[in-house]
Amino acid sequence: MNDNILNKKDYKDIVVVLDAMGGDHSPKIAVQGACKASLKNEFKIILVGDETKIATYLKKYKHDENKIQIVHAADEIKMGDHPKDVLRNPNTSIGIAAKIVGDNKGDALISAGNTGAVILATTKNIDRIIGVRRTALATIYPTHNSQKRDDIFSLILDVGANVHNSTHEVIHFAFMGNAYVKAIKGIESPTIGLLNIGSEEYKGGEVLSRTYKILKSIPNINFFGNVEGNDLMKGLVDVVVTEGITGNIAIKTIEGMAGSMKEVGKLAFKHNMLWKMGMVMLATGIKKLQDITDFETYGGAPVFGFEKTVIKCHGRSTEKSIDNALVLAAKSVHEDMSGIISRSIAHFEHRSGLEEMGRETNY
Amino acid sequence: MNDNILNKKDYKDIVVVLDAMGGDHSPKIAVQGACKASLKNEFKIILVGDETKIATYLKKYKHDENKIQIVHAADEIKMGDHPKDVLRNPNTSIGIAAKIVGDNKGDALISAGNTGAVILATTKNIDRIIGVRRTALATIYPTHNSQKRDDIFSLILDVGANVHNSTHEVIHFAFMGNAYVKAIKGIESPTIGLLNIGSEEYKGGEVLSRTYKILKSIPNINFFGNVEGNDLMKGLVDVVVTEGITGNIAIKTIEGMAGSMKEVGKLAFKHNMLWKMGMVMLATGIKKLQDITDFETYGGAPVFGFEKTVIKCHGRSTEKSIDNALVLAAKSVHEDMSGIISRSIAHFEHRSGLEEMGRETNY
Repeated sequence: MNDNILNKKDYKDIVVVLDAMGGDHSPKIAVQGACKASLKNEFKIILVGDETKIATYLKKYKHDENKIQIVHAADEIKMGDHPKDVLRNPNTSIGIAAKIVGDNKGDALISAGNTGAVILATTKNIDRIIGVRRTALATIYPTHNSQKRDDIFSLILDVGANVHNSTHEVIHFAFMGNAYVKAIKGIESPTIGLLNIGSEEYKGGEVLSRTYKILKSIPNINFFGNVEGNDLMKGLVDVVVTEGITGNIAIKTIEGMAGSMKEVGKLAFKHNMLWKMGMVMLATGIKKLQDITDFETYGGAPVFGFEKTVIKCHGRSTEKSIDNALVLAAKSVHEDMSGIISRSIAHFEHRSGLEEMGRETNY
Repeated sequence: MNDNILNKKDYKDIVVVLDAMGGDHSPKIAVQGACKASLKNEFKIILVGDETKIATYLKKYKHDENKIQIVHAADEIKMGDHPKDVLRNPNTSIGIAAKIVGDNKGDALISAGNTGAVILATTKNIDRIIGVRRTALATIYPTHNSQKRDDIFSLILDVGANVHNSTHEVIHFAFMGNAYVKAIKGIESPTIGLLNIGSEEYKGGEVLSRTYKILKSIPNINFFGNVEGNDLMKGLVDVVVTEGITGNIAIKTIEGMAGSMKEVGKLAFKHNMLWKMGMVMLATGIKKLQDITDFETYGGAPVFGFEKTVIKCHGRSTEKSIDNALVLAAKSVHEDMSGIISRSIAHFEHRSGLEEMGRETNY
């Protein structure tokens, strides 16, 4: 298979649809992020949400008005709402935003809103890639960058869309992660690791040991092997694929530990004078530590499995993270990420079907 | 069931068997730890390993000679050896130590050696508790102690003896952890949490949601509910039970993050003068941080499921951790930990058998 047959799209023809009502400080942050992005990029942005509120904020911040359009949505799904409300109510911002993308009037969807609602709205409106059985939720997390990449982040998926996945599903996740890192970071052959209980090939029970064996045999996957919990922060690989629940536990454990570090920093500040002086002197170091740990502000993470790019941003997203997410989404469209995923999976399933029929094949 | 019918054993009648050859600095550290423990405790210690080497070290350190005995073992299993060697060779220190305990000439087994070999030697020589289907490996890890206990440590099991466990097995783990915390910390009703993907009762697939339901209904289990990865460090509960692989991933992720913190500390020291001054001023804080993270030195963690207490210490154990592990082991014998586990599980399996037969019951 040739990954190089890309359906590249010009940036000026790309439309990113942003659910402006999602997130803790909506629609202000969404509008600010869109304004910032409009000034230095060619792609267009559709803001979906309360027209009056959005227009008010648009007037406040400098932007390129040829690149931003508003589509009105009367309602919104709040963080505490039941995700299913998005299916019952046709007027929610995330529902309308997903529909615009599903109707091919937009190329990518971004939301910092209720995760369940984002997934449901996407599932309802945007076609799933043929052959993909399960959606995967990804997260980007900071590492010690032992591969010396341009940035310190690795991608991990699935982190909670499913509890347990089959071997085929975990392999699909590898194709998804592979395509993402290629498209976004421009790394020709991203390294892929399998989150497991030990480094040996036979570890982790039937699903994981079978996944190991197949991943090793796929030529256009640069398979590193198993990675363990204590390897995650090292950044041994660009993409970590997981059986499901293990990814969720790992990433939330990292979040919890990162929170602990910040607590220690705060406590130190309340302490005595020497401590305070020490802290000031260490300020650069602490800043560095926070850059590493404060990954909530990093763009957003893709929801994989759909024909169109879908980026879920953190509820606590800032102007900068929305701006980053918009650029991320446009780049993934430009680089035809979904097309690469679709072709890789079709190719794999075809080969694996031949193999099941007893024909000689290679992946 | 009445947990209070304890078969308490006098400390002076308790014999703890220590594999003196296990661990990175054996037998020196083992002998030092045993010497220290002999001076301030009533229980006896059997050191198993190279008689000449052990005797040489014994002469060096102050100890109570009435409390320490040597049993010779010609061979040892090294960290890199295949665990199965312990089954092939009758002369290994861990094999002989486990046999002494299995033959009722000792009450508890401790080793800082090869984990696989410790489990195999135990399985071969020491009876499994009736009704227990799976051995569980536990780890003690540091928390922010949100329950304000006397120490900051929580227990998590299983952390890697098995990949996936059934509902019954996870419930057995709850009884094991419950008995341990009661015996060792003297907490009357330890809190138990279930490591899961979300806090809601229905989360985590069939095994976990069924486990939740049953744990909630057992009166002598103080069930907190689900805990997520980011809750682990908070110390919301005394005992975390896991489906298997999730526990391994979580605890290794914590280890990896703790390692990261130390790296940042070391880097800081190599930096400029201001940094160094800052570090000195923050020394108390850093010490505190290391106390929290450097949990390798904390005693050891139990291997559950056997009629006798088995404690696995870290390979990098120090004199202090061996001393702590000896006291821990003796205390668990004194408090009849294995008896409590055995009776809880027998009671649970009996009730659950009645229930399956359609009779009305309660746990």
